[in-house]
Amino acid sequence: MTQRNENEMPMSYSNRFNLADARRVVAAAEEEATRHGWPMVIAVVDSGGHLVLQQRLDGAQLGSIHVARQKAETAVLFRRPTRVFEDAIAQGGLHLRLLGMNNLVPLDGGIPLIRDGAVVGAIGVSGMRSDQDALVAQAGADKLIAAEP
Amino acid sequence: MTQRNENEMPMSYSNRFNLADARRVVAAAEEEATRHGWPMVIAVVDSGGHLVLQQRLDGAQLGSIHVARQKAETAVLFRRPTRVFEDAIAQGGLHLRLLGMNNLVPLDGGIPLIRDGAVVGAIGVSGMRSDQDALVAQAGADKLIAAEP
Amino acid sequence: MTQRNENEMPMSYSNRFNLADARRVVAAAEEEATRHGWPMVIAVVDSGGHLVLQQRLDGAQLGSIHVARQKAETAVLFRRPTRVFEDAIAQGGLHLRLLGMNNLVPLDGGIPLIRDGAVVGAIGVSGMRSDQDALVAQAGADKLIAAEP
Amino acid sequence: MTQRNENEMPMSYSNRFNLADARRVVAAAEEEATRHGWPMVIAVVDSGGHLVLQQRLDGAQLGSIHVARQKAETAVLFRRPTRVFEDAIAQGGLHLRLLGMNNLVPLDGGIPLIRDGAVVGAIGVSGMRSDQDALVAQAGADKLIAAEP
Repeated sequence: MTQRNENEMPMSYSNRFNLADARRVVAAAEEEATRHGWPMVIAVVDSGGHLVLQQRLDGAQLGSIHVARQKAETAVLFRRPTRVFEDAIAQGGLHLRLLGMNNLVPLDGGIPLIRDGAVVGAIGVSGMRSDQDALVAQAGADKLIAAEP
Repeated sequence: MTQRNENEMPMSYSNRFNLADARRVVAAAEEEATRHGWPMVIAVVDSGGHLVLQQRLDGAQLGSIHVARQKAETAVLFRRPTRVFEDAIAQGGLHLRLLGMNNLVPLDGGIPLIRDGAVVGAIGVSGMRSDQDALVAQAGADKLIAAEP
Repeated sequence: MTQRNENEMPMSYSNRFNLADARRVVAAAEEEATRHGWPMVIAVVDSGGHLVLQQRLDGAQLGSIHVARQKAETAVLFRRPTRVFEDAIAQGGLHLRLLGMNNLVPLDGGIPLIRDGAVVGAIGVSGMRSDQDALVAQAGADKLIAAEP
Repeated sequence: MTQRNENEMPMSYSNRFNLADARRVVAAAEEEATRHGWPMVIAVVDSGGHLVLQQRLDGAQLGSIHVARQKAETAVLFRRPTRVFEDAIAQGGLHLRLLGMNNLVPLDGGIPLIRDGAVVGAIGVSGMRSDQDALVAQAGADKLIAAEP
């Protein structure tokens, strides 16, 4: 699998996450997207990879409906930002093996949602360039951390 | 296909529908579901059957994530409430042919969204008994009509 | 959806469940199956429907590998014993609509695993007649309850 | 296909393999994984590629549930360690044709189980870096050979 820091133990999963949390996350992401004038699809899944909330901003390309959700699922299934896989593929060589997997989408824009050091879900954004998608996803992910007491 | 009234011309499709409309519809449905204490999944698709907005209320069964969306898609694809297909299957005989289709889910709870006599999308609800799902979907569908000036 | 008692509020999901729990459940089911001389496949999924432990007893039919897992998934996705769906279909009429769903397998033998009143996963058994499968699944499910302090 | 030594005759398949064998193999792999503190998914299939035993150690990433099984299947279907395919892809060029196959996963961690010179199944491990997965898979595979009288 794509390298983590060797000393880094994988995070656990937690189901401490509800629709209100998802709404805060999506609202923050939507605000960022709207601020830039980017029409995007924003999806949030829980720690089991199941969809909690998804919305398509007006004008977003239809293909992003599936991709946003798949980025979120990938981020939960493999407990890391999907950027990691995109960067790996860019290096070519051995890393192209990722293309042989059918439960992983190697596009930036999917970010795990972390609470108390555990993965409670993930946000996935799609619609513009993947780094722009990721900027919006990060705005959403940051909101959850910001909400911690 | 399941019979319409012979004098009834099929409605046309229209794409006059946006995220703000979908939010109003979902909010009305959510209010109805919450009023009854029913944990449900609510999905809204556009006139092309593409997901605009979907949310899972806390406590809803996971299976309803797919079913809610499928009910909405069915209602748009065939331009009628999915109740029609459920009723047909209840009659047995020839109507069981519907079970041989793979783009139609014959469960009550999917209702087309109508604006100015055209189908602009559909709402699909799943989580409790199908007639309860339909009650909540109707509350959402009524909101769109009510919003017309 | 297939009827629950109208006064029965759906159970919540909980992720308080680990491999040790799954082993106890499967061991109890295996003991029951072996006692009867029934070669079966036993699968346990978590509250997100993800496989934790699956084993095929010697001599079990290959088709049961998929079916055992699907029964467990169905029991978690819809938070009830799969027997409910089998019984419904036996009644015919309206209940045949269940056959139009693609995330539900209507065969007895899948039972939710309950802890502290919440669904923590499910066991699915396949290999013999479905009521025999269910007997073995129940032996497994009972073990989790028995393990509660 | 990826080259074998030209003098090397492909091994035959044998079905001399049962659940007890699979348990020994998985237990050895689990012990190795636990020793390192690596949360992994371990899957064992028979010579027909059908799942015999699969378990997810606590804390393993959800994505590894599918990948472990796919590695085991690949190792049986093509009668070689999946490392061979990973190494091939690393060379690029012609070898990228492997990515056009849908019944082969080119990730290290899948190893055939050999008994009396025949392939009786395979073990697949996923959860950490692929070389770590392979280390654990090898510990399992070695157990079967070690168990021979």
